[in-house]
Amino acid sequence: MKKNKPEWAPEEQDDKFTSTVMEGVSKPQNMSKKIHKRKELSLQQYVDGIISCDYVVLSKAITLIESNNPNHISLAQEILQKIIPNTGNSIRIGITGPPGAGKSTFIESLGLFLCRNGLKVAVLAIDPSSTVSKGSILGDKTRMELLSREENAFIRPSPSGGTLGGVAKKTRESIMVCEAAGYDVILIETIGVGQSEVTVRSMVDFFLLLLLPGSGDELQGIKKGVVELADLIVVNKADSNYLERAKITQVSYNSALRLLAPATEGWSTKALTCSALNHQGIEAVWSAINEFMIFVKESNILQKRRSEQMLFWINSMLEESILLKFYSNESIQQQKKNLESEVLVGRITATNAVKKLLNTYFGE
Amino acid sequence: MKKNKPEWAPEEQDDKFTSTVMEGVSKPQNMSKKIHKRKELSLQQYVDGIISCDYVVLSKAITLIESNNPNHISLAQEILQKIIPNTGNSIRIGITGPPGAGKSTFIESLGLFLCRNGLKVAVLAIDPSSTVSKGSILGDKTRMELLSREENAFIRPSPSGGTLGGVAKKTRESIMVCEAAGYDVILIETIGVGQSEVTVRSMVDFFLLLLLPGSGDELQGIKKGVVELADLIVVNKADSNYLERAKITQVSYNSALRLLAPATEGWSTKALTCSALNHQGIEAVWSAINEFMIFVKESNILQKRRSEQMLFWINSMLEESILLKFYSNESIQQQKKNLESEVLVGRITATNAVKKLLNTYFGE
Repeated sequence: MKKNKPEWAPEEQDDKFTSTVMEGVSKPQNMSKKIHKRKELSLQQYVDGIISCDYVVLSKAITLIESNNPNHISLAQEILQKIIPNTGNSIRIGITGPPGAGKSTFIESLGLFLCRNGLKVAVLAIDPSSTVSKGSILGDKTRMELLSREENAFIRPSPSGGTLGGVAKKTRESIMVCEAAGYDVILIETIGVGQSEVTVRSMVDFFLLLLLPGSGDELQGIKKGVVELADLIVVNKADSNYLERAKITQVSYNSALRLLAPATEGWSTKALTCSALNHQGIEAVWSAINEFMIFVKESNILQKRRSEQMLFWINSMLEESILLKFYSNESIQQQKKNLESEVLVGRITATNAVKKLLNTYFGE
Repeated sequence: MKKNKPEWAPEEQDDKFTSTVMEGVSKPQNMSKKIHKRKELSLQQYVDGIISCDYVVLSKAITLIESNNPNHISLAQEILQKIIPNTGNSIRIGITGPPGAGKSTFIESLGLFLCRNGLKVAVLAIDPSSTVSKGSILGDKTRMELLSREENAFIRPSPSGGTLGGVAKKTRESIMVCEAAGYDVILIETIGVGQSEVTVRSMVDFFLLLLLPGSGDELQGIKKGVVELADLIVVNKADSNYLERAKITQVSYNSALRLLAPATEGWSTKALTCSALNHQGIEAVWSAINEFMIFVKESNILQKRRSEQMLFWINSMLEESILLKFYSNESIQQQKKNLESEVLVGRITATNAVKKLLNTYFGE
C-alpha cells in the first residue's frame, strides 16, 4: 500500500499511517508516460526532460524557477544555462485586456486553434498582485478546461507573490523552459493591475489588447497608455446581440489608432473583431500575428527588440536589487517616512531631504 | 569710460583697454530699476529679491539653482527653504508637441493673452538633450520676442545638459522660485526627445498636447503614450488653408479620446483648435484650463496629485543618485559590458550575470 500513501506521509511508519491516495483522472498520453515521485531530479534529468517535453519535468522545472530557496535558484540557473541553445524559437505573445473582456475564453480559443493546426502552445500568466487575486489561478485552469486537455498545450498558473520584478523574472525564465521544450507559441496573459502591461510588453514579440464591444465607457478598466502598447486590438464578444456594437467599436478603434504612435515602428496597429466563445475570427487574429512576425523578422526588428529586452531585463534586475537594499534598510525607512512628511508640510526642501537620506545611507 | 567697458575687461588696466560697450535697447520699467553687478548677493537679498519679483535677482536665483557647484547648491537650498511658504499658488501647465506644431508661437500667444488679462506668466523649458539642440535656446527667446517685452512675463531658456533627473530638479526648483515671485501661471515647455514628456507630466497640474492639422501621418514626431498623458489637445495652425483640415483633425481626436483612458481621472480630455499666429482660439484654451483647475481643486485631485508628485520626485532623486553610484563604478562598467555580451550570445543567463555584478559591487 506504500505506493498509495499521500506524499506527506512519513516514510518509516508504513502501517501506522492509514490514509491512502485515490488514483486520479488519467492524464493524456504523454503526461502519464513517466511518473516522477518526489525524488530529486539531477541537472541532466531536468535538461533531458525539458528538451523531450516531458510534461512532469517541465512543471517541476518551472516550480524550481519559481522557488526562492537559494539551492533551487542555483540549480534553476544551471538548467537554464544548459538549455539556452534550445531557446528563442517561439512566438512570444502578450495578451491583456480589462476584466470581463474574456481573456481566458480568448486564450483557450486561440490555443485550441493553434493546437489543431499542429502547433504546440504554452500559456503563462503574469500577476504581480497574485496575493490578492489568488482565486483567479484556479479560475483560469477551470475556464481553460478544453485547452488543458490538449496534448500540445501546456497551461501554467501565475507565479505567486513577490515584487513585479521577481514575478517578471520567473515568467521570463519559464518562457525559456517552454521554448526549450519545443512550444511554438507562448501566450503570456496579464492578470491583476499595476505596471504588468508594461512588464509583459518588455518580454514579448507581439502585444495584443482584448476589448469589449462598447462606446469606451468600460475602458476605465484599462490603464493609460496601454492602447499605445498594442500591436493588435481585438474586440471580443462579437456575437448575437453584440455583433453590431463590436463592428462599431472596431471602426472607432481603427480611426483612433491612426492618430496614435505605433507600438512597433513601421507596423500599423489595427482592430479586429472575434467571438472567442463561438471560435469566430480567431483565424484572422492568427493571420495578423503571422504577418507581424514576417515583418519584424525581415526588418530585423525582432532581433533588435529581443536584444534590447534582454539588456533592459539585466538593468531591471540590477536596479531592483540595488534599490531594494536601500529601501529595506531600517534606519532609512524610518528617516524617509519622517523626511517625506516634513517635505509635504514645507518644513524642508525635497533636495535637502534626499541629501540627508543619502548621507545616512552612504555615511558621508 | 569704465562704466562702458565690457565685464570681461581687466579692472586695473583702465585706459589700455579700448573696447567699450554700447548701451543696449532700454528694458521695460521694472527691469531697468535695479542694476546688480557681478557682486554676490546674500541669502536675504536673494529671498527679498525673489519675493518682490526683482527680475534680475530672479534670474540670478535660477542660475544658482542650475549650477552644479556645491557652494551654489547649498545656497540655492537655503533660498528655496526660505521661500517654501510663498510657493504652490500657480497653475503649472506642461506643453508638448511634435516639432513644427508651433509650440513657441502658441506659448507666446497664450502668454500675451494671460498678461493682457492681468496675470503674471513665467515660461520655463525642459530639455534633457540640450547639448544637441542648444540652438533652440536662442531660437525660443527670439521667437517669443513680443512676450519677452511684456512686463509681467518671465522667459527662461532651458537649463543645460546633465541627466534628465538633474534637468528635472532644476526645472522643479525654478518653478518654486517663479511661484514665490508671484507668477500666476507657469508654462513648462518640453524640448527635445526622450522621456521628457513623462517627466514634465510628473511636475505639472495640467498637460497640453499641441498638434498640427493632418491625418496623423505627422505623428511620427510624438512618442507612444503621450496622447494618453494629455488633459487637453490643441490643434494649432487652424488658419487660412488649414482651417478645414484642423477641424477634421479635432473631430478625429475627439472620437479617439473617448476610447482612451483619461490622463486625469474624472476629467474628459478634449481637442480644440486654435491659430496661435492669429491669436484665435486662445481664450477657449484658457477656459478649458480654468474649468480643469476648478474640477481638480473641488475634487481634491490637485492636492493629492501635488503630494504624489513630491514623493515621486524624492524617490526619483534618491534612485538616480544610488544607481548613478553603481553605474559609474569603473569595475562594474567593464564587467557589465562583458557580461552583457555574454548574455546576448547565450553564454550565460541574465540572472547569473546580474548575480556576478551584484557580488562585485557589494563584495559578497
